[in-house]
Amino acid sequence: MKPPPLSDWRQTDFSKWYQEVIKAADLAEHSVSRGCMVIKPWGYGIWEIIQSRLDSLLKDSGHENAYFPLLIPLSLLEREADHVDGFAKECAVVTHSRLESDGSRLLPSSPLSEPYVIRPTSEAIIGATYSKWVNSYRDLPILVNQWANVFRWEMRTRLFVRTSEFLWQEGHTVHASRKEAMAETVAIHKLYEEFIGQELCLPILTGIKTPDERFPGAVETYTLEALMQDGKALQVGTSHFLGQNFSKAYQIKFKTQQGHEEYGWTTSWGVSTRLIGGLIMSLGDDYGLVLPPAVAPKQVVILVLTGKNHPSGEVVEYADQLKKRLSDLSLQSYPLRIRVDTRPIRGGEKKWQHIKRGVPLVVEIGAKEYAEQSVSYTHRLDPEVSVRGVGVSEFCDSVVGILAQIQQDIRQRSAQRLSEHTRSIEDLEDFADYFRQPRPGFASVPWCEGAIDHPLLSELKVSPRVIVGKASNNSRCLFTSGKATSQVIFARAY
Amino acid sequence: MKPPPLSDWRQTDFSKWYQEVIKAADLAEHSVSRGCMVIKPWGYGIWEIIQSRLDSLLKDSGHENAYFPLLIPLSLLEREADHVDGFAKECAVVTHSRLESDGSRLLPSSPLSEPYVIRPTSEAIIGATYSKWVNSYRDLPILVNQWANVFRWEMRTRLFVRTSEFLWQEGHTVHASRKEAMAETVAIHKLYEEFIGQELCLPILTGIKTPDERFPGAVETYTLEALMQDGKALQVGTSHFLGQNFSKAYQIKFKTQQGHEEYGWTTSWGVSTRLIGGLIMSLGDDYGLVLPPAVAPKQVVILVLTGKNHPSGEVVEYADQLKKRLSDLSLQSYPLRIRVDTRPIRGGEKKWQHIKRGVPLVVEIGAKEYAEQSVSYTHRLDPEVSVRGVGVSEFCDSVVGILAQIQQDIRQRSAQRLSEHTRSIEDLEDFADYFRQPRPGFASVPWCEGAIDHPLLSELKVSPRVIVGKASNNSRCLFTSGKATSQVIFARAY
Repeated sequence: MKPPPLSDWRQTDFSKWYQEVIKAADLAEHSVSRGCMVIKPWGYGIWEIIQSRLDSLLKDSGHENAYFPLLIPLSLLEREADHVDGFAKECAVVTHSRLESDGSRLLPSSPLSEPYVIRPTSEAIIGATYSKWVNSYRDLPILVNQWANVFRWEMRTRLFVRTSEFLWQEGHTVHASRKEAMAETVAIHKLYEEFIGQELCLPILTGIKTPDERFPGAVETYTLEALMQDGKALQVGTSHFLGQNFSKAYQIKFKTQQGHEEYGWTTSWGVSTRLIGGLIMSLGDDYGLVLPPAVAPKQVVILVLTGKNHPSGEVVEYADQLKKRLSDLSLQSYPLRIRVDTRPIRGGEKKWQHIKRGVPLVVEIGAKEYAEQSVSYTHRLDPEVSVRGVGVSEFCDSVVGILAQIQQDIRQRSAQRLSEHTRSIEDLEDFADYFRQPRPGFASVPWCEGAIDHPLLSELKVSPRVIVGKASNNSRCLFTSGKATSQVIFARAY
Repeated sequence: MKPPPLSDWRQTDFSKWYQEVIKAADLAEHSVSRGCMVIKPWGYGIWEIIQSRLDSLLKDSGHENAYFPLLIPLSLLEREADHVDGFAKECAVVTHSRLESDGSRLLPSSPLSEPYVIRPTSEAIIGATYSKWVNSYRDLPILVNQWANVFRWEMRTRLFVRTSEFLWQEGHTVHASRKEAMAETVAIHKLYEEFIGQELCLPILTGIKTPDERFPGAVETYTLEALMQDGKALQVGTSHFLGQNFSKAYQIKFKTQQGHEEYGWTTSWGVSTRLIGGLIMSLGDDYGLVLPPAVAPKQVVILVLTGKNHPSGEVVEYADQLKKRLSDLSLQSYPLRIRVDTRPIRGGEKKWQHIKRGVPLVVEIGAKEYAEQSVSYTHRLDPEVSVRGVGVSEFCDSVVGILAQIQQDIRQRSAQRLSEHTRSIEDLEDFADYFRQPRPGFASVPWCEGAIDHPLLSELKVSPRVIVGKASNNSRCLFTSGKATSQVIFARAY
């Protein structure tokens, strides 16, 4: 029954392990379009749950969805200088409006008078739109979010983590004051922290970016940095305070209550399908994907295991009734998501398919369970042990508790790993030693601005990920020995 | 209190009326990107409801969602000859992978070795993917849907109806037999018919397309043609039986149970944001948008009307409690969608804003209603009359019934208009007369293949929209006088 786990790649070749988990869980694959992925139904199912949960949180906090164009005219993009510098090297450029055959093959034809880029992000096109929407303080705040695809050419891709096209949400807001815009930036940062920490169970440290790591055009960038099992950091969500940079570039102006004209204060913020990469690399194990019940497309899969090709009608009926009963239950006020799998394949193979996909509970029902009115089940965090012959009512009474416990256990594991792999370092030699060992993790160090170019950083391939707080009194910057201003997390990053 | 209706444009200048409804209902606007629209929150809210309803129907019938790349390599697109012919003239072509400044402005740089087109539809990229997914009869059927944006350059645009970029769902399925694929094509056609007829209340006629009007590459196209108030037809949903055309072009092959190799049988089908254009042009009136309660983003808006700038706390509290009470009710098992509007603007203006947006019931609560524990309300189909002082419990008891009645009344109006504007015609002179009058509508005529090029059609700007059935015995084709094979609806079309 027991299949080999995904060998010891998780220890020896993390990148290979990552690819194998994605394959075994049937999440996504590379496509013939350079750098782009196909997100397969199980992977997309995770994204749909993330979307639906996050969308509710955003709507409950007063945001509405809208949709803005895919293509941005070049002249619009170049209005904010830092912004365009940040994205120019990875823009897909649309230059023609039709195809014509030269007899043997199709060629671009009808050149456009002005080329367009496919949005790498939408500040430019949304800024130009908001300049029309905002005229008076009465029009503010504007609290709008968009679910969309964006495009940034990538040379070295990794499914979910770095692909040329990806899916995300991007919020874009305008406010009447600096204070309000900053409050929005922080509120979304907190909302992300709660969602990603509690629902997705990722081990994250949060705070602001050092100046060099800010979003192009931002005044301040808040970030969530998640710790992967290979010790690297993955940036999984950002919230930007844009000051008046974009409102000046795109002329987002309003008449104040006192009657004078002012530029709006804007923010933008987003999370993407990269979150799924974070889930895999933070939570996966030797058997494959591990999904917190809150974001599992199916939390319980019921396997019907009778006969080789034809499951008996009564057992299928029994499974369907169990599904119905379970679907009436809720985990944190969301109805449970249940699937019955009657495919005529071997029981062991079927069970391990779902274990590899990260299904929290895999229930097996065969002739024996049917006769006893019981179920057997496998718990994703202990997949080699099957719990046999639990009475069906007892199972229904305990299933929500078991799922809640899995959610909590995964969260707990993450917290523990984060604490084990975050070290406070105050000495440059310790710092170098730490990052020379395999899979070091996060280093928390006292730091001052201007320390960024220390040669050790490029040698170790380490960068400042997030400012987590003020430096303690009298502490000295690790790199300059000057007075430290902040406590900063350093790590290797994806 | 009563604002002027949108003048008599609906009668005198339908196109102007259409634009004014969109503006008054705050649904969408043209953007600076050529031919593209911005879908504003209220318009996008309608799309979200359509998405969520249709997505449930598709999932309940066994379909899963996935996501495929935005960009299609030219060499892939050209594999199906009819398909590429159908789309070559409207393709956005990506030819460069970065931007570089020449000192004064940005220019495309780093030409791609092979250009890409932005998907005008995804048969090509999905076909190439399915060729990897499908190997054995055990892999079939594949029942996958995608929610996505697509792009087809349009010279003459109309918001929602014809824009270069639009949003849609596109289903792509593969089956082991012709019969199964045809059954899927028809099942989706019926699902669309039920959804668009019953929920969106559009007046539709359904059937198959004549050969010239088929989707490029399809063997058979099923269509839904909706009647607009100016008498024109709008194609609002299609379902294509693709035979083995695409599986041959993209090598979608499988081993049958008997062990020999066969090409798969494929289908594709979609509806788009064009449905919102259809809603406006079919159901709107002199006051603006009319929304069937099933697809209204908010079915009841509660206006708090006290004081000029500051609604009193108690009245707001009363409105919030009413919202809570109404939100616990359901229309066809979906919880009611309610908004409380406390914005400090004049009551009349506020009421008419929501009427123009098509909100089915606009409730007004002022000091008087609060004192009486009553509500006053306006019914969207009778917007100049306010029903005053209804006890709050009585209102809560009747609101679901009122909404269901609105849904039914709108459906009934559509059915009546469709029947009034569909005429059976068996004589060419009558046909010409019919289409020479203003706003003629649909003509149902006996027809045989080969009749398509009659000069009268281009003169009248009329085309065959849909084959609705077999011709009756002994009837003669209107155009050739040969034996008629089918009964076909002709109309002017968007």
